[in-house]
Amino acid sequence: MLKMIHPDQALDLVLAHAAPLPAETVPLDDAIGRVAAEPIAADRDYPPFHRAMMDGVAVYLSDAGQWVQLVGEVAAGGQWRAALAPGTAVEIMTGAPAPAGAEAVVPREDLTREGDRVRLPDELRGQQNIAPRASAVAAGQPIIQPGDPLSALAVGVLASVGRDAVRAVRRPRLRIISTGSELVDVAREPGAAQIRDSNAPMLAAFARALGLTGVATGRAADTPDALRDALDQARDAELLVLIGGVSAGRYDLVPQALAEAGVELIFHKVTQKPGKPLLFGRRQGQLVFGLPGNPLSCHFCFHRYVAPAARALAGRRASPPGGAARLTHPWRIKGSRIVFQLGRVEPGADGHELTLLRNADSADLFNTHRANCIARLKPAPGQWEPGARIDFEWLAGEV
Amino acid sequence: MLKMIHPDQALDLVLAHAAPLPAETVPLDDAIGRVAAEPIAADRDYPPFHRAMMDGVAVYLSDAGQWVQLVGEVAAGGQWRAALAPGTAVEIMTGAPAPAGAEAVVPREDLTREGDRVRLPDELRGQQNIAPRASAVAAGQPIIQPGDPLSALAVGVLASVGRDAVRAVRRPRLRIISTGSELVDVAREPGAAQIRDSNAPMLAAFARALGLTGVATGRAADTPDALRDALDQARDAELLVLIGGVSAGRYDLVPQALAEAGVELIFHKVTQKPGKPLLFGRRQGQLVFGLPGNPLSCHFCFHRYVAPAARALAGRRASPPGGAARLTHPWRIKGSRIVFQLGRVEPGADGHELTLLRNADSADLFNTHRANCIARLKPAPGQWEPGARIDFEWLAGEV
Repeated sequence: MLKMIHPDQALDLVLAHAAPLPAETVPLDDAIGRVAAEPIAADRDYPPFHRAMMDGVAVYLSDAGQWVQLVGEVAAGGQWRAALAPGTAVEIMTGAPAPAGAEAVVPREDLTREGDRVRLPDELRGQQNIAPRASAVAAGQPIIQPGDPLSALAVGVLASVGRDAVRAVRRPRLRIISTGSELVDVAREPGAAQIRDSNAPMLAAFARALGLTGVATGRAADTPDALRDALDQARDAELLVLIGGVSAGRYDLVPQALAEAGVELIFHKVTQKPGKPLLFGRRQGQLVFGLPGNPLSCHFCFHRYVAPAARALAGRRASPPGGAARLTHPWRIKGSRIVFQLGRVEPGADGHELTLLRNADSADLFNTHRANCIARLKPAPGQWEPGARIDFEWLAGEV
Repeated sequence: MLKMIHPDQALDLVLAHAAPLPAETVPLDDAIGRVAAEPIAADRDYPPFHRAMMDGVAVYLSDAGQWVQLVGEVAAGGQWRAALAPGTAVEIMTGAPAPAGAEAVVPREDLTREGDRVRLPDELRGQQNIAPRASAVAAGQPIIQPGDPLSALAVGVLASVGRDAVRAVRRPRLRIISTGSELVDVAREPGAAQIRDSNAPMLAAFARALGLTGVATGRAADTPDALRDALDQARDAELLVLIGGVSAGRYDLVPQALAEAGVELIFHKVTQKPGKPLLFGRRQGQLVFGLPGNPLSCHFCFHRYVAPAARALAGRRASPPGGAARLTHPWRIKGSRIVFQLGRVEPGADGHELTLLRNADSADLFNTHRANCIARLKPAPGQWEPGARIDFEWLAGEV
């Protein structure tokens, strides 16, 4: 019998078993949201030449305050073949290479023009409006490290240096199995004592918001044979989530079925509300979660334990962004467990404001589905008062 | 000649033209991240019966402190056909309907058992561990409203009430066109004065992080003919983004080409850094953005103007979540424009801490690609000091 553990210890144990998966090569247009698995170096200097940052004229500093002769023009993509001579100026466009010898680019609006001569301002700064060659990065320097998130900006970096494919950490495959004899499929009409399976579609949608592909869902009846078959067929996924049947009741066959399938139990039961019966184990390279079947418990355990495991396996930072927000109303906590409550965080006059969403029972998605965060509330004598600072995490898909 | 406008006015103007698109019917597994376009009502009561919330026995309150006879068992999915008689108890599993007449469910751990009799605790509360029928929502009540985000929780709601498809706001199609004679494709080796086009792949990746599908990218040379053809071919997209050629320079042909293509100009130039040359217009149902070609300007304008337009067209809240964070280091602002700077926000001891990422020039993705936010800095006399509270927005894909 394992001891009930604290939610933070539970998360630590999950993450201790969620090392990044091996790398694969992906095309650039599938790189976003992944994590680099190879170092990338600059293929040449950036900027690759002394680059004009404004439309204007390229000149010598010694010509400040003088009239100079316009001798030609260089557009972006073009090049001025000769060296710039003192007393002359070359018109230059943003993004074009400055002519050899040019010491400044003077913006068009700072010039007085007469025919093919322009008068320069009295004051010029060296390198003004010129981005010197290699000032961002020099050829050969590392620009992306293994472990760097491949943000849109990083995709821009990869494109800059000519990479149309990149080695990235593989994303985990996820298999979701709902158990429970009271469940019917979404498209079926439930009998009087039955309900539709809302958990598998909900978690599949959650996984999609996390950027996971290759998510498979299925259902197993509450019998040892059905569970054994389902566990056998789910060996290929790095993440296996079973929903329901995980408490200590007479029909809670999941812990026994997992043991018989060779799953090493790591913890079972966490001092949290909801989600107390949460189970975590592994077999070979597979992380196995047993989630309670109550939809709010199921959603919470996926947010707090499965999603961080999925992110960590994909090489990403495990936990989603969060913050602290001021409670807009009183809230009473019963019992001694840490409570995680769905809520809405909105910008307020003095930082974020948090409104917790009251659920009728632990199956009540109906009054909570507008949540954009999960708040963490310690048990408090009396109640949490309006204005109290409460920690929260954003739900997936909010950014 | 239009007046240069404030960045907040610019965003207001964009959003004033970005009403939600018409609805389409999507399968439930493609609903996540969309917004509902129809009201959904509960198909029956939830819970649909008086539902046991724990494993235990269903009893009368008047039997508190008594020994009662176990007369059978009801599992989840099953039903107890007779009414419960006083002096008796029915074993019941979590999720099962309570027998008619049952007033409380007593958890197994609170019972003393001898053979087929159990002793109940001295104190029982009415309805304890029973979720009464319709306590979450009654049949026919509205549960999802048009405009509600289809979160994972909302997908669970839809599955509960038997909806395997839903009317949702359509997502905009996005067409991205890079202009600039200095640009070559990612897979090509650039000449000495050329650079690879990093903007189109970067923005396509950004769009993907926003959940947009149907993103097309292309390139047009800096000639009136090429621009006209590109604009002609891009009529089907609700969002059209042209990159480059948008300043007032001699080779900046985009404003003229847009005018000739029938695009009504709404604003051109914004008092912001980066992204001053930003242009916004529309033709029929299409919103048209002219973004500066400098990669950091381009990325910023997409984050602050195009992404909110895309979200608003899809019926979502326009702006991403953000907050305020304490600056970890001093930062000097030159000039009088509002500055938007890439940075990293991390949790600190007293809320979020913000480290701004210094870029060498406005093309420098290399030193900024690890950013997870964009901070907004007002011009300040002197400099922003460590500890100053700075507003930020999360970059797409961070949650």
